[in-house]
Amino acid sequence: MEKKALFPQVGRIIHGGDYNPEQWLDRPDILEEDIRLMKKAGINEATLGVFSWSMLEPREGEFDFTWLKEIVDKLYENGIYTIMATPSGARPAWLDEKYPEARRVNKNGVRELHGIRHNHCMTSPKYRELVRIMDEKLGEMFGNHPGVIMWHISNEFGGECYCDKCVQKFRDYLRQKFDGDIEKLNHAWWNTFWSHNFNNFDQINPPFSHGEFSSMGLSLEWRRFTTINTADFCRAEIETLKKYNPDKPATTNFMTMYDGLDYRVMEKDLDVISWDSYPRYHNDYEKLSDTFYFNAFCHAQMRSMKRDKPFMLMESVPSLVNWHDVNKLKKPGVHKLTCLQAVAMGSDTVQYFQWRKGRGSFEQYHGAVIDHLGSDDTRVFREVADVGETLLKLKDVCGTTLKNRAAIIYDWDTRWAFYEVRAFAHDTIRYDDTCISFYKTMAKLGIECDIVASDSDLSQYEFVIAPQMYMLRNKTSANLKNYVKNGGVLLATYMCGYVDEDQLCYLGGFPGDGLKDVFGVTIEEIDAYYPSERNTVKTDDGEVYTVRDYAEILRDCKARVLATYGGDFYEGSPAITENACGSGHAIYLAARIDETSQEKLIKHCLGLTKTLASECERALPEEVGYFVRCGENNTFEFFLNYSEETKNIGNIGTDMLTGEEISALKPYQVAVVKH
Amino acid sequence: MEKKALFPQVGRIIHGGDYNPEQWLDRPDILEEDIRLMKKAGINEATLGVFSWSMLEPREGEFDFTWLKEIVDKLYENGIYTIMATPSGARPAWLDEKYPEARRVNKNGVRELHGIRHNHCMTSPKYRELVRIMDEKLGEMFGNHPGVIMWHISNEFGGECYCDKCVQKFRDYLRQKFDGDIEKLNHAWWNTFWSHNFNNFDQINPPFSHGEFSSMGLSLEWRRFTTINTADFCRAEIETLKKYNPDKPATTNFMTMYDGLDYRVMEKDLDVISWDSYPRYHNDYEKLSDTFYFNAFCHAQMRSMKRDKPFMLMESVPSLVNWHDVNKLKKPGVHKLTCLQAVAMGSDTVQYFQWRKGRGSFEQYHGAVIDHLGSDDTRVFREVADVGETLLKLKDVCGTTLKNRAAIIYDWDTRWAFYEVRAFAHDTIRYDDTCISFYKTMAKLGIECDIVASDSDLSQYEFVIAPQMYMLRNKTSANLKNYVKNGGVLLATYMCGYVDEDQLCYLGGFPGDGLKDVFGVTIEEIDAYYPSERNTVKTDDGEVYTVRDYAEILRDCKARVLATYGGDFYEGSPAITENACGSGHAIYLAARIDETSQEKLIKHCLGLTKTLASECERALPEEVGYFVRCGENNTFEFFLNYSEETKNIGNIGTDMLTGEEISALKPYQVAVVKH
Amino acid sequence: MEKKALFPQVGRIIHGGDYNPEQWLDRPDILEEDIRLMKKAGINEATLGVFSWSMLEPREGEFDFTWLKEIVDKLYENGIYTIMATPSGARPAWLDEKYPEARRVNKNGVRELHGIRHNHCMTSPKYRELVRIMDEKLGEMFGNHPGVIMWHISNEFGGECYCDKCVQKFRDYLRQKFDGDIEKLNHAWWNTFWSHNFNNFDQINPPFSHGEFSSMGLSLEWRRFTTINTADFCRAEIETLKKYNPDKPATTNFMTMYDGLDYRVMEKDLDVISWDSYPRYHNDYEKLSDTFYFNAFCHAQMRSMKRDKPFMLMESVPSLVNWHDVNKLKKPGVHKLTCLQAVAMGSDTVQYFQWRKGRGSFEQYHGAVIDHLGSDDTRVFREVADVGETLLKLKDVCGTTLKNRAAIIYDWDTRWAFYEVRAFAHDTIRYDDTCISFYKTMAKLGIECDIVASDSDLSQYEFVIAPQMYMLRNKTSANLKNYVKNGGVLLATYMCGYVDEDQLCYLGGFPGDGLKDVFGVTIEEIDAYYPSERNTVKTDDGEVYTVRDYAEILRDCKARVLATYGGDFYEGSPAITENACGSGHAIYLAARIDETSQEKLIKHCLGLTKTLASECERALPEEVGYFVRCGENNTFEFFLNYSEETKNIGNIGTDMLTGEEISALKPYQVAVVKH
Repeated sequence: MEKKALFPQVGRIIHGGDYNPEQWLDRPDILEEDIRLMKKAGINEATLGVFSWSMLEPREGEFDFTWLKEIVDKLYENGIYTIMATPSGARPAWLDEKYPEARRVNKNGVRELHGIRHNHCMTSPKYRELVRIMDEKLGEMFGNHPGVIMWHISNEFGGECYCDKCVQKFRDYLRQKFDGDIEKLNHAWWNTFWSHNFNNFDQINPPFSHGEFSSMGLSLEWRRFTTINTADFCRAEIETLKKYNPDKPATTNFMTMYDGLDYRVMEKDLDVISWDSYPRYHNDYEKLSDTFYFNAFCHAQMRSMKRDKPFMLMESVPSLVNWHDVNKLKKPGVHKLTCLQAVAMGSDTVQYFQWRKGRGSFEQYHGAVIDHLGSDDTRVFREVADVGETLLKLKDVCGTTLKNRAAIIYDWDTRWAFYEVRAFAHDTIRYDDTCISFYKTMAKLGIECDIVASDSDLSQYEFVIAPQMYMLRNKTSANLKNYVKNGGVLLATYMCGYVDEDQLCYLGGFPGDGLKDVFGVTIEEIDAYYPSERNTVKTDDGEVYTVRDYAEILRDCKARVLATYGGDFYEGSPAITENACGSGHAIYLAARIDETSQEKLIKHCLGLTKTLASECERALPEEVGYFVRCGENNTFEFFLNYSEETKNIGNIGTDMLTGEEISALKPYQVAVVKH
Repeated sequence: MEKKALFPQVGRIIHGGDYNPEQWLDRPDILEEDIRLMKKAGINEATLGVFSWSMLEPREGEFDFTWLKEIVDKLYENGIYTIMATPSGARPAWLDEKYPEARRVNKNGVRELHGIRHNHCMTSPKYRELVRIMDEKLGEMFGNHPGVIMWHISNEFGGECYCDKCVQKFRDYLRQKFDGDIEKLNHAWWNTFWSHNFNNFDQINPPFSHGEFSSMGLSLEWRRFTTINTADFCRAEIETLKKYNPDKPATTNFMTMYDGLDYRVMEKDLDVISWDSYPRYHNDYEKLSDTFYFNAFCHAQMRSMKRDKPFMLMESVPSLVNWHDVNKLKKPGVHKLTCLQAVAMGSDTVQYFQWRKGRGSFEQYHGAVIDHLGSDDTRVFREVADVGETLLKLKDVCGTTLKNRAAIIYDWDTRWAFYEVRAFAHDTIRYDDTCISFYKTMAKLGIECDIVASDSDLSQYEFVIAPQMYMLRNKTSANLKNYVKNGGVLLATYMCGYVDEDQLCYLGGFPGDGLKDVFGVTIEEIDAYYPSERNTVKTDDGEVYTVRDYAEILRDCKARVLATYGGDFYEGSPAITENACGSGHAIYLAARIDETSQEKLIKHCLGLTKTLASECERALPEEVGYFVRCGENNTFEFFLNYSEETKNIGNIGTDMLTGEEISALKPYQVAVVKH
Repeated sequence: MEKKALFPQVGRIIHGGDYNPEQWLDRPDILEEDIRLMKKAGINEATLGVFSWSMLEPREGEFDFTWLKEIVDKLYENGIYTIMATPSGARPAWLDEKYPEARRVNKNGVRELHGIRHNHCMTSPKYRELVRIMDEKLGEMFGNHPGVIMWHISNEFGGECYCDKCVQKFRDYLRQKFDGDIEKLNHAWWNTFWSHNFNNFDQINPPFSHGEFSSMGLSLEWRRFTTINTADFCRAEIETLKKYNPDKPATTNFMTMYDGLDYRVMEKDLDVISWDSYPRYHNDYEKLSDTFYFNAFCHAQMRSMKRDKPFMLMESVPSLVNWHDVNKLKKPGVHKLTCLQAVAMGSDTVQYFQWRKGRGSFEQYHGAVIDHLGSDDTRVFREVADVGETLLKLKDVCGTTLKNRAAIIYDWDTRWAFYEVRAFAHDTIRYDDTCISFYKTMAKLGIECDIVASDSDLSQYEFVIAPQMYMLRNKTSANLKNYVKNGGVLLATYMCGYVDEDQLCYLGGFPGDGLKDVFGVTIEEIDAYYPSERNTVKTDDGEVYTVRDYAEILRDCKARVLATYGGDFYEGSPAITENACGSGHAIYLAARIDETSQEKLIKHCLGLTKTLASECERALPEEVGYFVRCGENNTFEFFLNYSEETKNIGNIGTDMLTGEEISALKPYQVAVVKH
C-alpha cells in the first residue's frame, strides 16, 4: 500500500455506496439483513446521511441522531466504514415553510415551492445558518468517530438562484471584479453596442428569462459567479466540519460533464476528487467500446484535477439506472469491467448508488445491489460480490497514480463562451465532442492523456492538444508559448484564440495575444458548412482528409505547410501548418477532420516528441484499454477488453486476478500485471 | 323495441345533434329553414343549450329563456325532441369579470383571464352557486317538458385548477384519505426519500410547475382528486335538475381516451353513458380498417361502463372536423359506416356536432349537416339523410345490448402511474396502445371484448387479458385469483403487479400481492430495448415470435413453460408460461411481441376456454367487423365491411337494410340480420 | 440622372452602411483609419446614430452630441454623406430604471427587465416624450446640415406590448372601429359561440398567453392595432424631425417577410421605402438561383409599395451574418451579384450593416467591411471596393423605376387570418410560399411582377395572380370585378374568398362577395391531403398535373372547364376553369399543383393577355434574372446570372460594366445595357 492511499485505515480499495437505512427504520429485520448481505458482497463502506435532514431534525430544533449513531456503530463493528454526508442537498418541509428564502427564485423570477432536491439558494444567510447548526451536530458526533473516514458535502451541487440576495451578491461580485469602476465593465462587455452602457452596478440583473440574454459578458460572469457562490457554500460546510477534526478529509461528488459549475474552481476546497458515473452501456448510437472511451474521458478529466492523488468513484450503478431514456441491463461481466476501469484509471474506490432500492418515490427503480426482491440469489448480487472479491486482490494498487506525458486542454470558460457565442453554426460547435474525440484518438494509440486547463502547469507533458481553444485566459498564451519554447509539441485547431477572458475579440488577427507568432499563421475567415457539406485537405505526403463543419482560411503563413485545402474557393491554401518555435513545435489544424485523419495527424505530431512515438508503436489491438498506475514500490499495468470479442495482447506476464500467464483477453476481461 | 331502450317515447334510434339557434336569432328565415331541413334529413333530436349562458343570462340576474322555450316547442311540434344541456361549460364575460374565483389558476400559479371554454374552477362556491341558479331555471322550465328527453350536463369535462380553494380541498381530501395521519401519507409516498416527510397536511401543494414534480404519490393523488372534484361538480348539477323531475335521465359527454379523468368514477352519477367520437379516417399512418378497430375499442370502453344498457354516440361529425392536423373529407359511404358501427356496438343514438356551421370563431369550419353554403343539395346532406332513413329500419334494435364472453383489463390508475414512473423506456411504455392492440387482435378473431377494471366482476367472462397491469388495486389480486380458480383463463403480460395503489413496489418479487402464485413465476429483472433492438421467443411448438421494447427475466418458475427467449444473455429462460390454478389457467407473457404472434398466443389461450375457441373458428374475413346485440325478443347480428374491397362473408340470411339475402359486403357496406 | 433620383445632391448610387464610431471613441487612430478606408472602398454614405442613445444622453438630461457632430462634419469634408438615425430602438439603462413604463409587458403579463433592444412600449407617454426630446435635439443640430441627407427612424420596428396602457389603447381602438357598439363587435367576432359575448369594451383583453386564444376576431384586431400603434409611434418621430426641415426625407428599415406589422399601413408615413436583406446564400435546401429568386420576391414586395420611386437597400452584409443557423461565407463574386440585383430591381442604394465589426456583444461576428483583423488587404474589402467602383458606372440609373405589367396579390390580413384559422391542414397552408412560388414561375418566364394588395389600383396590369386569397377585404371584390371587366386576366387559386374582413364566412357559397359570378364556379368542399398523398388534374389538351395538399370540389360551374380531377371520389369534376367576364378572363385553379404545372397554366393565361405572351417568348435561359429600369431619358436592361455556370443570352449589346459587346454571362456575372 502506497503512502498516497486515500484511506490507510481501511487498507484496501473501498467497495461500498449510498445506504439509506432511514427508509427502513420500521423494519429492523431488513436492517439486520443488510449487514449480513454487505459482508457477503465484500462491502466495506457505506455512505450515510445523504438527504437525511427530515429524519435528523424532523421539526426545527428537534434533533434525533440516535438511529444514525447506532447504524454507524453497528457497521463499524462489522468492519464497514462510513462516509458521512451532510444533508444539505434536500430540505425538510418545515424549513421551506418557515424560511422561504431557502427556496430558489428561478430564471422567470418566481420563487419555487417546496419539492424536488438540490434547489436551495446558495446565498440565503438563514439556510447557511441552519446548515451550519446541522453540520456542527454532525461534526461533534462523528468528527472523531473511527468508523467515519470522510465527509461527503451535500450532494451533486448545481443550479442557479435569481433571488434578491443572489442578485445583490452578483452585483457585489461584479463591483469587486471591475474595481468598482462601471466603465471598466462597460468596456469589457462592449456595452456601447445597442446602448447597453450601465451607469452603476445596481442596474445590473442576472440573465432572467424576461431580461437580458444578449450580453455575452453578463452571461459569462453570471456563470462564473454561480460557481464562486456554490464553492463558497461548500467551503463553509467544510470549515464547520473541520473544526472538529482538521484531518478528516472532505469531498463532494462531481458530475463530470455537468456544465453549470467550473469544477476546477470548486476542487480547490476539497481534499479528494470524487464523482458519479452513469454511462449508457449497450446503447444504439455507438459501440460498447466507445461508451468505455467516453467514460474514460470523464475519469481522466476528474483525475487530472488532482494529478498526484487517487480519486474516488463515488457513485455508479450495479445494474441499471431509472432515468435514462432506455434503462437497459448491463450484460454479465460489464459491471465488473466498469469497476475495474475506474481502478485502472486512478480511483481508490468503487462505490454505488445504491445499496437497496426504496419502495417508492422518484428513484424507486434506480438500480441497487439489493432489489425489491430482497435476495442475494440474484444475478446482480453475484456480480457485485465477485467485484468485492476481485478488489481485495488489488489492495496494493491503493495510493498509486498515473504519470501521463500527454494532455488535452479543456476549459470551462471556453465551453461557456461557446454556449453564448452568436456565430459559426450553433449546432456543430460541439466543443466537448471535439475534446473527447481527440482523447479517444490518443487512447486508441495507447496513450492516456490528462485533461488540463489552458493555464495549468504543462511541464510534465511532451504533447499537448488544444482543440477549439476559443477563449484565451489571461495566462494561456504565455503558458503555451513557454511550453513550446521549452520543447513541447502543441497541436491546436480551428477556433483558436478568438477572444480574451471578457469575450472581446482580439484585434489584428486571430489567434490573438501573441499566438499568431507561435503558430506562424493568421486566420482571415472561418467558413461554416451545412451538415451535408464536405471538403478535403491534402497533405504533402499524399493523404486526403475529409473536412466537415468548419474550415478557416489562413494568411500570412510563416509556418511549414503540412496540408492544403482540396476544394472550394480557398483550394490550395494552407489547412495544416507546423511551426518550429524555440525547441518545440506548434501545429495548427484549420479545419475539422474525421477521427481516422486525426489519428494520422497525431502520429505525425508524436514523431516530434521525445518518447511518445515509440510508445504508440506498442500497438495494442483496437478496443483494449491500457493504463499504468505507478507507486513508489510498484507499478501496475491494466489491460481492459472493452469489446465482446477475444483480443490477443501478446504475453504480458502474470495476471494478478487469475494468477495465470496471460496473452489474450476474453470479452470484457481485465488483466492486471504488477511490476 | 326492448325494455331497456333509452328513449321509449321516441320509439326509434335517436338521430340528431348539437344545434345552436342562438347564433341565428337575427335570421328567423334560417331558423325556419332549419326545421324543414331537419325533417328532410330524418333528424328527430336536437341538443340545445350547450354554451348558451350569455344568451340565457346576458347580465347577472337578467334571464332570457324565451327564445329557448320557443325553439324547444317548435321542434317538439315538428317531432323533434330536445336534449337540454346546462351551459356551465363556458362562462359569460360579466361572470368572469365580477367573480374571478370562477376562473382557473393554472399549473404556474397564474389565474387565467377570461376566454376559451371548459376552464372554470370546479371548487369555486360562487360559480357553483351561479350554476345552481341557472340549473334551477332550466329544471323549472324544462324538467317536465315532454319534448325534453334528457339532461346533458355541461360539456366535455376536463382540466385542473390550482387555486387556493382547490389546494385547500385537495389537502382535505388527503387528510380524509390518510385518516388525518400525516405519517400514513409519508409512508405511502415514501417521503423519507430525499427528506420529503411532511409535518402536516397543510404543507402539501399540488404539482405546480414551479413546485414538486418528483413525488409519484402526490401526482397520482392529485389526479384522483381532480376526478373526484369534477364528479362532485357534475353530481351537484344533476341533483339540482332532478329536484324537478327525478325520472329525466342525465348524462355528460365523455371523450373516451381523455386521460385527465377516471370516467369509471364519474359514470356512477350518470344514468347513461354518452361520448364524442372523432377518429382520423383515411389518415396516412394506418389502414382505414385500423381506424375502425381503434374506434371500436373506444366504443367498447365506453359501453362497458354500463354493460347492461345501450350507450349514446353524443357527438360525431357528418363530414370533417376543423382541428385535426389534416382535416380530410370522409369518402362517400364512410359516414354511414361510422354511424352503423356505433349502433352495432350498442349505441341507441347517432348524434352530430353540429347541425349548422357558425359563421365565425374557433369552430367555424367544424363539419356540420348544413354548411355555409346553406343548401340540402350537397353530398354531405344527402349522406346524412340516407343515415336517417337507414336508422328508421333499425328501430327494433333500441334497448338491446351486447353479451360478451371476453374482456380486457384497463385501469386509469395504471395509466396514470405509467405517466409518472421513472423507469423502463419512457417512450415505449405505451399502455393504451398495448390494450388496444390486444383488443384488435381479438376483434380480428371475431370476438368482441369488454373493457373492464381490474376489480370489476369478471364472472361473465371465459377469457380475460390483463396487459401491462402495473398497479394492483386493493381488490385486483383477490379478484383475479378468484376468477382463475373458478375456471377463468387469464393472460397477463410483462410489467404485471409491480406496485400497489400507492405506487409502492411490492417486496419479495413481482407480480406482488399473491399473483406470483397465480402465475407460478417471479420476475427478477426487466430489460428495456432501444427502438431498433429485437430478440425472439421460441415456443415449444416451433413458432418464433419477435420481441421488442421489453423483456422480463423470470425465475422460480413453477408453471409450464410455453416459450423461451431465443437470444441475449437470458437465452433459453422462460418467456411465456402457463399455470394451472384451481379450475382455470393463468398465462404469463414476459415480453412484448408483435400482433401476429399475439394472435397465435391468444388462440392457444382460447383453446383453454369453454366456448371461445369454436367462436373464433367462424372465421370472418379480415377487416369485417362483427357484433351481436341481444334483447329479450330478438338478436341482431351486424356485419361491417371496414375496407375498400368487397368481402365474401357466406350466406348470413336476410339483411334488414336491403331486404335481400346477402353473402358479400361491398366496400363500407353494413348488413344486419335479425333472429 | 433622373428627376426621381432619391439623393440628387449625392449624384450617384449610395454605397454605404451602418457606422458605429461611438464604440471606438477611445481609439482616434481607428476613427482616422475608417475615413481612409471608406474612401478606398468607394463608400459615400454612413448611417449614424442607430442605438446611440446612451452615448448621446448618458444620464437623463445630460446630452453630449459633440462626438457625433464632429464625425458628421469630418465625413462630409471627405465626401461621405450621413443618414441620421434616431436612437429610439434601444434604451439606456437609466431610462428603463427610472421609467419602467417604457419597458414592454409580454404575452404572459410580465413586465420585461432592461435588456436586448427593440422592446419598448409603443404607447408609453413618457417614452414618447423622451424620444421627442431626443429627436428635437437631433432635428435642431442636423435638420439643415448639408451632409445629412435623410432621417432613419429608429430601427426595424416590431413586437407587441401587453401593458395596461396598450390594453386601454386597444380597447379604444375597438370602441372606435365598432362605433362604440359592443353588439357590432359581438357579431363581427361571432361571440355567441361559446358564450363569448362581451357586455362592454372594457371586458376585452388582448390575446395574453393565459387568456383568450380562441377568438380569431380578437387576434386579428390585435395584430391590426399593433401595426397602427407602431405606425403612430413612427409618425410621431417623423413629425418632430420635419419641424426642423420639412424637405429632409424620412424612412425606417423594413424586414420584408416580417409578419408582425402590415408594412402597407406603415409605409404611408414614409418618404422612401428601405429594407434589410439577409438571404441564406449557398444553403443546403435550394439552388443558389432559388435564393436569388426568393430575394427578388422580397425586393419586389418592398418596391411595389411605392411603385413610382426607387427604394433603398438599407442593410445587407458584405460577408456573412452571425445569426443564421449556419453562417457561411459568400463565395467570391456573389456579393457583387447581390448588390447589383438590388440596383436592377429598383434600389438607388447599396448599404451594409456594418462598416466595422465591434469587439464584443451580440453582433461581434456580424459581417462588416472591416474585420477584427482591421486591414484593407482582405478578400471582403476587395470585393466591397470593387462594388464601389462598379456602382460609379451606374450613376445614371438613379431615379429610374420598373414599369411592370403583371402583379401578384399578397395581403397581410390574409396572411394573419391563415395563422389563426382552425381548418385545412395547418402545416401546409403556406400562404407565403405559394405567393413566392407564383412569383418565381413568372420570373423564370422573364416577367417581373409587382406584389400588390387586393385593393390596389390594378389598371397598369395585364395579368394578376391571386393565390389563396382567403380573406376578401371590403374593396377586394369590386376591385377584381372591375379589373376583369375592363379586360384584365385574373388567375385565382383554391381558398379564395372564404371570409370577409372580420373573418366571418360568406354564406351561400365561396368565393363570396360576388366573386362566384366572376369565376363562374362555387366551392362545395375542400379536401386536405396528408403530406404523402397525391392526386392528378387532367387538362383538356392532355396534360397531367400533380396535385398535393389541397383540392376543392366545385359545383354550379358556368365557366369553361380547362381541367378535371384525375382521381379520388371527385374524379372528373372541374379542377381548373376559365370564365369570360366583361372583356377579361377569370381563371380558377381549385387544387395545389407543382411549379412545372403552374408554368403551363400561366402560359395559357398569358395567351389571353395583350402583350405578355410575346414577352415570355423572349426566352432567357434558366437562372438568369432580367429587369428593366425606365427613366425619362434612358432605359436600362439588367441581366444577372444567378448560377455557377456560364449562360448564353444572345447578343444584347454593349455592357456598361465591361464596356464590351456581350452575349454570354460568366458565373455570377451581371451585364447592364443602356438604351
